[in-house]
Amino acid sequence: MNNIAVIGLGSMGYGIASSCLHSGHSVWGVDTNNKLMTKFCDLGGQKSHLDDSILDIDVVVVVVLNSIQTESVLFNDSGIVKKLKPGSVVISCATVAPNFAKEMELRCEEFGVLYLDAPISGGSLKAANGQLSIMASGSKEAFRCAQKTLNSISETVFELGNEAGAGSAMKAVNQLLAGVHISVMAEALTFGISQGVTPAKFIEVISKCAGTSWMLENRAPHIVDGDYTPHSSVNIWPKDLGIVLDVAKNAKFDAPIASAALKQFKTAVDMGLGLEDDAAVAKVYAKSANLSLPKKL
Amino acid sequence: MNNIAVIGLGSMGYGIASSCLHSGHSVWGVDTNNKLMTKFCDLGGQKSHLDDSILDIDVVVVVVLNSIQTESVLFNDSGIVKKLKPGSVVISCATVAPNFAKEMELRCEEFGVLYLDAPISGGSLKAANGQLSIMASGSKEAFRCAQKTLNSISETVFELGNEAGAGSAMKAVNQLLAGVHISVMAEALTFGISQGVTPAKFIEVISKCAGTSWMLENRAPHIVDGDYTPHSSVNIWPKDLGIVLDVAKNAKFDAPIASAALKQFKTAVDMGLGLEDDAAVAKVYAKSANLSLPKKL
Repeated sequence: MNNIAVIGLGSMGYGIASSCLHSGHSVWGVDTNNKLMTKFCDLGGQKSHLDDSILDIDVVVVVVLNSIQTESVLFNDSGIVKKLKPGSVVISCATVAPNFAKEMELRCEEFGVLYLDAPISGGSLKAANGQLSIMASGSKEAFRCAQKTLNSISETVFELGNEAGAGSAMKAVNQLLAGVHISVMAEALTFGISQGVTPAKFIEVISKCAGTSWMLENRAPHIVDGDYTPHSSVNIWPKDLGIVLDVAKNAKFDAPIASAALKQFKTAVDMGLGLEDDAAVAKVYAKSANLSLPKKL
Repeated sequence: MNNIAVIGLGSMGYGIASSCLHSGHSVWGVDTNNKLMTKFCDLGGQKSHLDDSILDIDVVVVVVLNSIQTESVLFNDSGIVKKLKPGSVVISCATVAPNFAKEMELRCEEFGVLYLDAPISGGSLKAANGQLSIMASGSKEAFRCAQKTLNSISETVFELGNEAGAGSAMKAVNQLLAGVHISVMAEALTFGISQGVTPAKFIEVISKCAGTSWMLENRAPHIVDGDYTPHSSVNIWPKDLGIVLDVAKNAKFDAPIASAALKQFKTAVDMGLGLEDDAAVAKVYAKSANLSLPKKL
């Protein structure tokens, strides 16, 4: 069993930390929110300050919002990398640009610390159940050191190459598709309403036709139920599609469909829907075309 | 068994006519291309001129390109509706605007002819095997008279209401999604290439992730194989997404993602790719970003 630090106890990080506990690892949970740290200690997390045990740590899982937070956790004045023992591994889970992941790998290397570029997919429920999909790349040694942790938190690990960047590249590709599929599901569903197709009939028929997608089948039921409890929030998408489009721009790659989807999510945020489930992007279309969506029963 | 006329022996119509033959119906195949008519006669189609048997016809399946051709087949000077016996049924398969379908139903009614609004989905292989999906709406009487033919040509019939228009509305919703999903698959796949993700790896990983869609799994392999033999051609999409956006515009419905996809397909046509498989929209992205797609082995 390993000594694992999980940095970031949001909906994904808390599930990851819990899954590690569940497998029998010793787990330190760290967050800027003390309540979350206390809650995690009550679940069985280590109560000592991480700094007091830092040389015992084998694995650091970083589950923060973005590259700025990732860099800060790893390398700011109180950053963790310089404190870790050589040969320990950082598993970095945030969605970031591939070049950022490469840079982090190099900077960790200066301290003899391994780095696994390991963006995650699957949502908070799968995180809690240790069933994430992980798009991972890094050295053989990084994979070897991360193995027990990966086993505890994931159902599927895609091994995408022997250096950082490849994992984040695949994650960006997936997010481009996932974000567009959510928004176009909302576009088609509300277009259907304008033509007399009820949302319930939309799901019944389209999920069996060539127009279906994983996201459609997962998210359209939220609209039918009028339930926008955030499994994954609207706020994710301006962030993740923003990263995708930054990476694309740097590669002189034009992504007009992703751009169109990003615009819809930004409008959703402007409408105050940022904390709702991402299916709430349907409200952008409904408002624009003066249509009614199903209400919660 | 019924006496059935199939108007339009393109890739879909020929398959439909063949499926009807296969079930034991007497089938007249009609096309402006005499070679196709001869080929169908050789397969077992009726050799007499349709006009000589017109009062024996129970069912007319119209499988032409669009609303202009549909209206022409039904109502121009030599149009078939005025010649049919009352109580016969027209099964109209082209993708058309819902209001056009409603108008055709009314005009058929004037001649005592039933009308089933019945756009099809599934591609030429499913047409040939009698396994189409049909999004159908019309009167109970129209469904009753069309039943044996529908049984012969389809795997699934969605019964969407008791008047024309609902079938075409659902088809438009499906085409909005299907067209966007093809184009965004191409966008994500080529974006992946720009980040070092090979098309083969793209399919391997994304088809198991939240970014997948029916179209991605069906069309991305064509790009990996470098094989643009048209199962469904690029030319379909400026037509079908054009119909979707016309219908949307009439409903004052803004569909920015469908518009972005339409633009990519129009560019593909401008590049001379209209007759290639619709996965060739990837070539628009590859050209724009100066990337190489897999060649055919």
